[in-house]
Amino acid sequence: MQTHFLDLNHQSDESIMDLIYNAMQFRNGKQVRWKRSVYFANMFFENSTRTHTSFEMAERKMGIKPFNIDPNNSSTKKGESLADTVKTLQAIGIDGVVIRHKTTGWYEPLIDDDNISAALINAGDGSGQHPSQSLLDLLTIYDEFKTFKGIKVAIIGDLLHSRVARSNAEILHRLGATLYFAGPDEWYPQDFEAFGTFTTIDNMIEDVDVVMMLRVQLERLNDDSRENFTAIDYANVYGLTTQRAQKMKPTAIIMHPAPVNRNIEIADELVEAPQSRIFRQMQNGVYARMAILESILKQRNLIAEDNYEDLN
Amino acid sequence: MQTHFLDLNHQSDESIMDLIYNAMQFRNGKQVRWKRSVYFANMFFENSTRTHTSFEMAERKMGIKPFNIDPNNSSTKKGESLADTVKTLQAIGIDGVVIRHKTTGWYEPLIDDDNISAALINAGDGSGQHPSQSLLDLLTIYDEFKTFKGIKVAIIGDLLHSRVARSNAEILHRLGATLYFAGPDEWYPQDFEAFGTFTTIDNMIEDVDVVMMLRVQLERLNDDSRENFTAIDYANVYGLTTQRAQKMKPTAIIMHPAPVNRNIEIADELVEAPQSRIFRQMQNGVYARMAILESILKQRNLIAEDNYEDLN
Amino acid sequence: MQTHFLDLNHQSDESIMDLIYNAMQFRNGKQVRWKRSVYFANMFFENSTRTHTSFEMAERKMGIKPFNIDPNNSSTKKGESLADTVKTLQAIGIDGVVIRHKTTGWYEPLIDDDNISAALINAGDGSGQHPSQSLLDLLTIYDEFKTFKGIKVAIIGDLLHSRVARSNAEILHRLGATLYFAGPDEWYPQDFEAFGTFTTIDNMIEDVDVVMMLRVQLERLNDDSRENFTAIDYANVYGLTTQRAQKMKPTAIIMHPAPVNRNIEIADELVEAPQSRIFRQMQNGVYARMAILESILKQRNLIAEDNYEDLN
Repeated sequence: MQTHFLDLNHQSDESIMDLIYNAMQFRNGKQVRWKRSVYFANMFFENSTRTHTSFEMAERKMGIKPFNIDPNNSSTKKGESLADTVKTLQAIGIDGVVIRHKTTGWYEPLIDDDNISAALINAGDGSGQHPSQSLLDLLTIYDEFKTFKGIKVAIIGDLLHSRVARSNAEILHRLGATLYFAGPDEWYPQDFEAFGTFTTIDNMIEDVDVVMMLRVQLERLNDDSRENFTAIDYANVYGLTTQRAQKMKPTAIIMHPAPVNRNIEIADELVEAPQSRIFRQMQNGVYARMAILESILKQRNLIAEDNYEDLN
Repeated sequence: MQTHFLDLNHQSDESIMDLIYNAMQFRNGKQVRWKRSVYFANMFFENSTRTHTSFEMAERKMGIKPFNIDPNNSSTKKGESLADTVKTLQAIGIDGVVIRHKTTGWYEPLIDDDNISAALINAGDGSGQHPSQSLLDLLTIYDEFKTFKGIKVAIIGDLLHSRVARSNAEILHRLGATLYFAGPDEWYPQDFEAFGTFTTIDNMIEDVDVVMMLRVQLERLNDDSRENFTAIDYANVYGLTTQRAQKMKPTAIIMHPAPVNRNIEIADELVEAPQSRIFRQMQNGVYARMAILESILKQRNLIAEDNYEDLN
Repeated sequence: MQTHFLDLNHQSDESIMDLIYNAMQFRNGKQVRWKRSVYFANMFFENSTRTHTSFEMAERKMGIKPFNIDPNNSSTKKGESLADTVKTLQAIGIDGVVIRHKTTGWYEPLIDDDNISAALINAGDGSGQHPSQSLLDLLTIYDEFKTFKGIKVAIIGDLLHSRVARSNAEILHRLGATLYFAGPDEWYPQDFEAFGTFTTIDNMIEDVDVVMMLRVQLERLNDDSRENFTAIDYANVYGLTTQRAQKMKPTAIIMHPAPVNRNIEIADELVEAPQSRIFRQMQNGVYARMAILESILKQRNLIAEDNYEDLN
């Protein structure tokens, strides 16, 4: 149990499984009641419709009152530190802040600051973590297979710059999955060897249970000394094409954190194909985030009661 | 009945009259109750305090929970298509999206997409339609005369670039009004002949029941080969001056979609004169939008009950 | 009693004391109930996380429904006057607007306009007033000393450009406090002589009960003919350093309107020191604003009932 939610990797297997089960309960209609009004601020220093809206929906469905703070209109423009902004918000009565920030580990100086009492939720930090995305990915896999043990998962694409690849790799490995990686050599971090096998998509597409494609940041395609490398080249060598998808096991699923580059890392017609769980991931995102908020606010003794509401 | 609200011109006379009557009921205090929580997203890719705030007020008065998505901070900045953004929002739990977009017919690719289930509300598309504005204009005229049959309506100004002139002309003609048009020749679309008569403001100001002025987009004043044409020139030739207003019938009303350019298309002192319905139009806008939302959400079977609340 | 809240200086001693007592009641849990739904719009033409969030929190805690209008996305971009924007909002159903604007006295043309009925709340106007900040400052001082009579208050720094220095000086003087001023000569307005004594920080730091530091607008440091003057120089000559703070009376308190420039006008470690009331000021800001909103809305006959809610 913890009072902030900053990464998933430092949590025990049991804590992670508890979050998954609690997310499933929220999906089944679980409700919480609060001891008093609870206010959260959402501060997205980097753009994200998906994650921002998902957190706001999670808050609203739980009866948490959201404040959306646009960092472009905020006092950080006057040079105020993130720590001072958070202290300001908590003085005003905000109980927790959901922050996405381009600085890896933005929360480090804040958790060391004795004067910060507000709950800190990491909605993505630089090239660091994106733990609520990891949790929704885990939930989506667990929904399908009811276990992680022995499940074969391929993670394909820009493993180096992805905020979720490392965290998913570490946790899936720890929970008993067998992992394969593919993608451009220069985007493969050597230390991923600890979690699984680096190979090609064609070598393992027929064997895996989960094909997790990563987003290509298009501006990187011509970086890293790869001249004249195009989106079509990428699709041909590393992408999930329809030809490759036909070789997948009938029970295998396709995942992607979105937004999708259609016809680059994944063929257009696969995004909404029956084996795709891409929009299911987004649905699960709301419930995963409700479980995250619940775990923190229970620890902070703000929850009066949780129960399944009679939906009649 | 329909499950999106994209234009008014394709709706039957009866549907339009139903929307008008329902708007009047909301103005008289009608309330709706929902079968479950209903969430809408408002996405304004073009600026509009008036329409955005009016839709948000309509949503709130009906108990719909609004999410305001700032397109400038959204994933469309990462190149995501509008269709994928809407699919994301519906996966997150959004029941409907109110969109203003500079692309005429932005909704066409979306209504052809089988994977889009969210209600689409057109809050203005490029040089296309602005159907909620049309409805509030119709409501405001109906309030005054209790019929459209035989009512003489002048629509004056930039008929070519206005999003409401064409739609209002077609519908008012269809509902039995007699129409007159005035304004610069080069801003007169020839096919408006089907709906009424192109003349000058001085030729018909004494005869009409409704003087509907259109906004001049100032940047156009010196376009279209009209050199050195100024705001004062425009007012003198095409504008509703106080001299012209004095010739109006005592029962005639002044309308304008706003924002108004005071002393260009309309004299400053007329904006809030007794015969002006300009701010009444804005009031009616909220109730017109409530009727629009109700019609779509009734069709989607989300309304549990509608009734007049006891205002004591 | 008044129906707008534009400055504090034109209010009687009694009105100011009433606002302070009412703020204290809200802090103790006072609740209001409304005769009908009340809607407010918050329009911040200048950035301010602190004041904006504080007003929104005050509104929400009172059950007022806030609309956050981003002026960057609004019709004022189309050249609409502030008066017309406010009339639009009130036509849509907004009962009051909280406005921060760079124009000193932005509200003057609006209060002279008979067609404006919405409540106007000044959240800071140009180089003019910032009356809700003044009220929270007064509340914070009163909390400490239970009187203003005979209290010695130092106001230190950029007295010329501060929106609260003048207003605080005038009111504190009127309520019986003894005032001292310090800071750069060129930032000292001669007419402050009417309220107190201009001296140096070292001359009075041992004697005062309240040390109110003002924010340095960094871009001004090298203006006003002061070449090569740095932040360190400022701190040494005019700032509240730890050395100076050690000379303060044990009962004296430190105040600052924030955001703070740590180590310029005030030493880093003093911001959250025991004698600092800086974050307490922010807490009080919410309750001061609730008292302001209550005073206006009571006058407008919108409050059904006010009472202490049973917190069990």
